[in-house]
Amino acid sequence: MSAILERFDAARALADLRELTAATGDERGARRLAWSDGWQQAREWVRARLAELPCTLERDEAGSLWATLPGARPEAVVVGSHVDAVPAGGWLDGTLGVVAGLEVMRAAAAAGQPPVTLRLVDWADEEGARFGPSLFGSRAVVGDIDPPAMADLRDADGLRCEDVLRANGVELARVLDAGRRRGDIDAYLELHVEQGPLLEQRGLSCASVDDVLGIDRHSVRFTGAARHAGQTPMEVRRDAFLAGARFALECREIARRRPGALATTGPVTVDPGIVTVVNGGCAIMLDLRSRDRAELAEMVAEARSAAARIAEQERVELDWEVVWEAPPMSFDPELVAIGADACAAETGERLLMASGSGHDAVALGRHLPAALLFVRSTGGIGHSPEEDSPEADLLAGLRAFARLVDGTIAWLERR
Amino acid sequence: MSAILERFDAARALADLRELTAATGDERGARRLAWSDGWQQAREWVRARLAELPCTLERDEAGSLWATLPGARPEAVVVGSHVDAVPAGGWLDGTLGVVAGLEVMRAAAAAGQPPVTLRLVDWADEEGARFGPSLFGSRAVVGDIDPPAMADLRDADGLRCEDVLRANGVELARVLDAGRRRGDIDAYLELHVEQGPLLEQRGLSCASVDDVLGIDRHSVRFTGAARHAGQTPMEVRRDAFLAGARFALECREIARRRPGALATTGPVTVDPGIVTVVNGGCAIMLDLRSRDRAELAEMVAEARSAAARIAEQERVELDWEVVWEAPPMSFDPELVAIGADACAAETGERLLMASGSGHDAVALGRHLPAALLFVRSTGGIGHSPEEDSPEADLLAGLRAFARLVDGTIAWLERR
Repeated sequence: MSAILERFDAARALADLRELTAATGDERGARRLAWSDGWQQAREWVRARLAELPCTLERDEAGSLWATLPGARPEAVVVGSHVDAVPAGGWLDGTLGVVAGLEVMRAAAAAGQPPVTLRLVDWADEEGARFGPSLFGSRAVVGDIDPPAMADLRDADGLRCEDVLRANGVELARVLDAGRRRGDIDAYLELHVEQGPLLEQRGLSCASVDDVLGIDRHSVRFTGAARHAGQTPMEVRRDAFLAGARFALECREIARRRPGALATTGPVTVDPGIVTVVNGGCAIMLDLRSRDRAELAEMVAEARSAAARIAEQERVELDWEVVWEAPPMSFDPELVAIGADACAAETGERLLMASGSGHDAVALGRHLPAALLFVRSTGGIGHSPEEDSPEADLLAGLRAFARLVDGTIAWLERR
Repeated sequence: MSAILERFDAARALADLRELTAATGDERGARRLAWSDGWQQAREWVRARLAELPCTLERDEAGSLWATLPGARPEAVVVGSHVDAVPAGGWLDGTLGVVAGLEVMRAAAAAGQPPVTLRLVDWADEEGARFGPSLFGSRAVVGDIDPPAMADLRDADGLRCEDVLRANGVELARVLDAGRRRGDIDAYLELHVEQGPLLEQRGLSCASVDDVLGIDRHSVRFTGAARHAGQTPMEVRRDAFLAGARFALECREIARRRPGALATTGPVTVDPGIVTVVNGGCAIMLDLRSRDRAELAEMVAEARSAAARIAEQERVELDWEVVWEAPPMSFDPELVAIGADACAAETGERLLMASGSGHDAVALGRHLPAALLFVRSTGGIGHSPEEDSPEADLLAGLRAFARLVDGTIAWLERR
């Protein structure tokens, strides 16, 4: 079965992507922050392309856009990704998967009624760049989210989450009603740019993702004493930033001792942050990742112990708050294998790789059969205007995705 | 000669201070940021008190307020400090010296024409908390400032320095004309809260400052690569924050190796500061202080060398910019001794101490005879609403200041 691949025009998908990029960004990067005007423009662009096809369009209670092309059977293969972006984001993150899905829908429509139903979904707020929680639309469908708890979150401009979503037609109290959509997904497929260096290192265009690293995210705050930088002897200082500096360096060692594990100290803020004052406060967000559940727990324990020891030595207070925990997971082995075959048909190599990042496919894959293909990144750069991939690799990745759709339709028909 | 001390009412000065504090701040601290409405209110309060005395009032080209009580001789002892404050600042910083000076003027006026001229000055923008450069008014008088270079500096609200000063009646192009005031100062005396722990540790109310630490301030930036926190293996990361963390810790060691020397890493910012991204940038402001010019130069050299080594090891770029250099200095030995005698008369101990912070007396002391007395701080806290001193120590410090004025008048008469 290769109905999709035969009619799938990877070059047209790439042209779509360039058009969407030009319409919703500039040389400073994408302007598609979730729930913003730029995001709505991108969404309108997707709607307009879908309006040319014989599919029905709906928006679910979480703000995700669904397009359905009914098949001979009601079981559905769903393709998708997201058009929202971090501020000044890249041109491939999310949008590559959306234009891939759009081209799948075009190819399917051109082939006549498909054997199974096909759906495209453009998930709302994958990035969480505005209010914090990511994978909003996809987690809403599988019930892995607490929308009321988001009501009072505020964005960088101080706007309340509930108000912003309401202005976008989304009522937090009704978001979990999007869960009715879970029955509409028998397999979920996503194409995404790697945003890491592995495929480039291996000289491959694309690969199938089997495992997903677990993530443990913690908010750590050291509180010392803000004292005059010129009047406070070194020996009596309680410098919260220096405690934070030691902690961050130890967290790196905790990850370095374990191949494949990751530790990142992302946002770091100090207060008062005045040149004439020793920093009395230092807040660090720690992000630990591992493919192994036990290893991840060990890393968290070591980080907590390091923080406590450093706080005591530096005579500062320690506050530790768990922000987010997502255990490691593995995608459905049958779909992983179909994806690996699809990539091998393009690249000649059947590589399976882990994902260290969350994607909508990961949110869904915890609950239902899903597959995720990664496309090679140039320099491993993501979440940046410099995010890019060689054109030949994008085209190969797009074709591999069409193969994955064909394979998954056949898999669904066999069930 | 004790004409001032006899009529100086320390309790009245303290009552003044409490009145000024209540009028221009609340439990969240002082609201007297330079060139703001709160600062103008504080200035008006000072003007109103001076208007009750037989002195002339003038404002110089840098916005400093001068009050003159002509003496039998034109030579002048000048007392003063500042009423501007850092945001949410303390109740003693600057204002203690102003109310001390005000009470000196009252005492002098009550004693009839003084043997030498007495002046009170309320310096403009000592803190530099709004646009950066500190000691604005005092440095203008001694010519140690480049006002045109300040024109385009912006405050936290994005307002231009030149515009803000103009709205306050100060033209940057004419600020150095305040230098004509230098001839009006034969000795400058200031009382200031220590904002450090030494006097509290020694159990003393006040002491005379002899040396002032030199300050070398540098803006250091490390630039690595902002990469996805979940997709970038530890071994290929170029994490600018971790380079900054190592640098800050090494700078602490550079100071710790030298008794009395100080190293502070104040503002620290990272970018992009997103939990899912390795920090590609880290900017740190480094402030090094020492009483010895050669030692300070050594510290700077070691810090530069550490930064270069760390940048190489972490594979990040290094940018280093000298922000400010003020060499160590010593106050006029005769005035230091008069100040020490004045303090000893109150405390029984003739302690000389170094100042690690800049004060208007320091700016002036580089060019003319000046003296600075420190009053004990509770917990060494400064630049904070918690800044405080025991009342008995404030009263003793105020009386010591009156003794210093009497001694300096006598010193000037002897010359």
